[in-house]
Amino acid sequence: MSAAATRTSGQDHLWSVDDHLKDILATVQPLEPIELNLLDAQGCVLVDEVTVALSLPPFDNSSMDGYAVRVSDVEGASEEFPAVLTVIGDVAAGAAGLLEVGPGQAARIMTGAPLPPGAEAVVPVEWTDGGLGGGPVSGMRARSLSPEDATGQVRVHRPVEARAHVRAQGSDAKAGDLALAAGTVLGPPQIALLAAIGRGTVRVRPRPRVVVMSTGSELVQPDEELASGQIYDSNSFALTAAARDAGAIAYRVGAVTDDAETLRSAIEDQLVRADLMVTTGGVSVGAYDVVKEALTAIGEDENDSGENDSGEGEGEGEPEAGHGVEFRKLAMQPGKPQGFGLIGPDRTPLLALPGNPVSSYVSFEVFVRPAIRTLMGLEDVHRPRTKAVLRADKALTSPVGRRQFLRGTYRDGTVTPVGGAGSHLIAALAQSDALIVVPENDTSLEPGTEVEVLLLG
Amino acid sequence: MSAAATRTSGQDHLWSVDDHLKDILATVQPLEPIELNLLDAQGCVLVDEVTVALSLPPFDNSSMDGYAVRVSDVEGASEEFPAVLTVIGDVAAGAAGLLEVGPGQAARIMTGAPLPPGAEAVVPVEWTDGGLGGGPVSGMRARSLSPEDATGQVRVHRPVEARAHVRAQGSDAKAGDLALAAGTVLGPPQIALLAAIGRGTVRVRPRPRVVVMSTGSELVQPDEELASGQIYDSNSFALTAAARDAGAIAYRVGAVTDDAETLRSAIEDQLVRADLMVTTGGVSVGAYDVVKEALTAIGEDENDSGENDSGEGEGEGEPEAGHGVEFRKLAMQPGKPQGFGLIGPDRTPLLALPGNPVSSYVSFEVFVRPAIRTLMGLEDVHRPRTKAVLRADKALTSPVGRRQFLRGTYRDGTVTPVGGAGSHLIAALAQSDALIVVPENDTSLEPGTEVEVLLLG
Repeated sequence: MSAAATRTSGQDHLWSVDDHLKDILATVQPLEPIELNLLDAQGCVLVDEVTVALSLPPFDNSSMDGYAVRVSDVEGASEEFPAVLTVIGDVAAGAAGLLEVGPGQAARIMTGAPLPPGAEAVVPVEWTDGGLGGGPVSGMRARSLSPEDATGQVRVHRPVEARAHVRAQGSDAKAGDLALAAGTVLGPPQIALLAAIGRGTVRVRPRPRVVVMSTGSELVQPDEELASGQIYDSNSFALTAAARDAGAIAYRVGAVTDDAETLRSAIEDQLVRADLMVTTGGVSVGAYDVVKEALTAIGEDENDSGENDSGEGEGEGEPEAGHGVEFRKLAMQPGKPQGFGLIGPDRTPLLALPGNPVSSYVSFEVFVRPAIRTLMGLEDVHRPRTKAVLRADKALTSPVGRRQFLRGTYRDGTVTPVGGAGSHLIAALAQSDALIVVPENDTSLEPGTEVEVLLLG
Repeated sequence: MSAAATRTSGQDHLWSVDDHLKDILATVQPLEPIELNLLDAQGCVLVDEVTVALSLPPFDNSSMDGYAVRVSDVEGASEEFPAVLTVIGDVAAGAAGLLEVGPGQAARIMTGAPLPPGAEAVVPVEWTDGGLGGGPVSGMRARSLSPEDATGQVRVHRPVEARAHVRAQGSDAKAGDLALAAGTVLGPPQIALLAAIGRGTVRVRPRPRVVVMSTGSELVQPDEELASGQIYDSNSFALTAAARDAGAIAYRVGAVTDDAETLRSAIEDQLVRADLMVTTGGVSVGAYDVVKEALTAIGEDENDSGENDSGEGEGEGEPEAGHGVEFRKLAMQPGKPQGFGLIGPDRTPLLALPGNPVSSYVSFEVFVRPAIRTLMGLEDVHRPRTKAVLRADKALTSPVGRRQFLRGTYRDGTVTPVGGAGSHLIAALAQSDALIVVPENDTSLEPGTEVEVLLLG
């Protein structure tokens, strides 16, 4: 007789939501860092601090399209009495082999191009005649079409101070400066900085690979025909989407029938690509709750490798911390039955969620999402919480001793319940964007009460 | 001589940020809907309303693991004087060919299994002896290990009312009900509902394919060696990441040199996979600003197809609305020079952003992100805005007549500027999570002032 069939001892103890979560987060460890290409690291957490290898900008360069000049050459210049300078050529962005600007000379210079030797400042093209011999111009003609503009003379209509329109080498960041601290989450601006300092790859904690598997002989794929007594599998779709939303790379495994051997083999097949496994269904007190049966055995095989080769678990007591999957009852509604543990040769974390669609979704938000974000090394692992005024026609009732999570819509500091407490109410779930948290000791919440809300958006 | 070289007319008009944005959003149209597999539609917008095809649940079913009974058979039952019923078998979830529960009989039933004919309610297993002949049990033994528990007798310790622990057919949603309204964004709960009602595919507006191309002969790939006058390309990385964040499928094209023919050919090559193109650099008043040169020609080819096959544009005036790419100066800092238009045979929208890293990133947030989200059919296309109290050591100054976007960090209703106004300050950008908006007519903002903030997070 397997442990799953009789291990009722300890199951009458109700775990609190907080203790179950604490156990999960104390067990799940951030993934080992890997070196990823910059764009593959988007959304990931930087492991080491990154320092600036070369100064930004790497050289003094122009912040305008204009003319690189010597300050004394344009002193006192005006439109009426322009300074007339000889244009010795172009300095384009990316140019090497620089011109040298001597007295009475100017180099036409483009934004981002290095300030040539001899030049002290840049005069914007709009302060000149652009070499065309007329009044002020609004821009340059394309080099490819008017190469002659890179030579000849330019009339400068205004003086400039030294370093005007010049971005100094290192004015953005200096070599040796801290670019990004360890623990930074890499969004577009952080990726911009890493690229700018020449980092094409970066060491981060990777996105966890999460395998989502629903169980239940009653489950049928959408778009197929339902036979009598069957329903469509929705959990594997919902939780795969939710895992992605949390930051994971999620793999959906279709529904597995309620047969322990089949399930065990399906799980073992998936372990190779899983940093975290999530199952739904089969964790309660029924005679067909095969997740318990199958996972207890995998857990114990692993713990006692070599010593217990029968493939059937025998231990009746609590598994050791971090060994095998433990099934618990939680002081929570929905989501009372939960399994959690480490399985397989790599001690892969597995969360076994209840099978009712609302139960599994709420359990995901409360337990799996923080686990995924812990694997990623994020500090901010939870959904944001806020206070909201309850807007309802009548009081909400909740069983004593259970933390209840009701579905609701949050708008501007108020929350309105959607649908009832039933854990099968998917239609109402799909209209909600928040979970209303009713604490363990509250059995009734009056309209107008301030309540705690988890924002799902 | 190409239009790009001389079309200075009209360029001195400063467009407002709002007018440029309005023009973009009036031109960009939501993408044509396609039918996608459910998980591929995550984050997409539903085009048609979806009604419930079959009721949820599709049949009366048990909400507990227990025994399906006739109410009169358990009337007055207690632990001392239990009702003793004959167990006629199991009803598992997914079972077809139902048992019929007669007087004095019970069927062992699992959560989700159809209520068998004759039964009126479900007694939870915890209110029985589980068929074991002792006191109350906390669960059932696994069917696979104790098949005999599906027969024999069960002692029921408590009465139940009719329909107790039964979820009625249609109690979640009834056939014909509205499941999801047109315009709904598909997150995990909405995907759950679609799966639950049997929809394996769904008609949505697809994610836009966005091609990001940076231009500049000075640009080098990260991890390569910098020669004199060169810098690393960061824009193509930042904007590819930002396009993904906005919901797009983004393709990064490496930096293209400042040569009009090369650029034109690179853009034409990419058009086939682009719903939107974004370029950076080459849009200002310099002699090497080839984006203007190249795109004006493509635009005019398109306008005048067949009539102007020289490949060189000739029109000096403003392009017609929606035809070709128009280059503008905006009353904006950073981000003054901008290009926008439709190009190629499919009139693909193209936004040509300035090349300074901060300019291109701010331009992306203000113009490109809303364009991407408009292509997706989203209603909520803008970054969230909020008011915040300016926390700074001294007043912020801003040029008159320009809307300035400064980088800052937002915390609990206050915003603190990070770095200066320079559009090359990537390091400061990477530390910020908000843009401080300084209106056109404000030239100075004192510490303590309430300012408008765009939240980037």
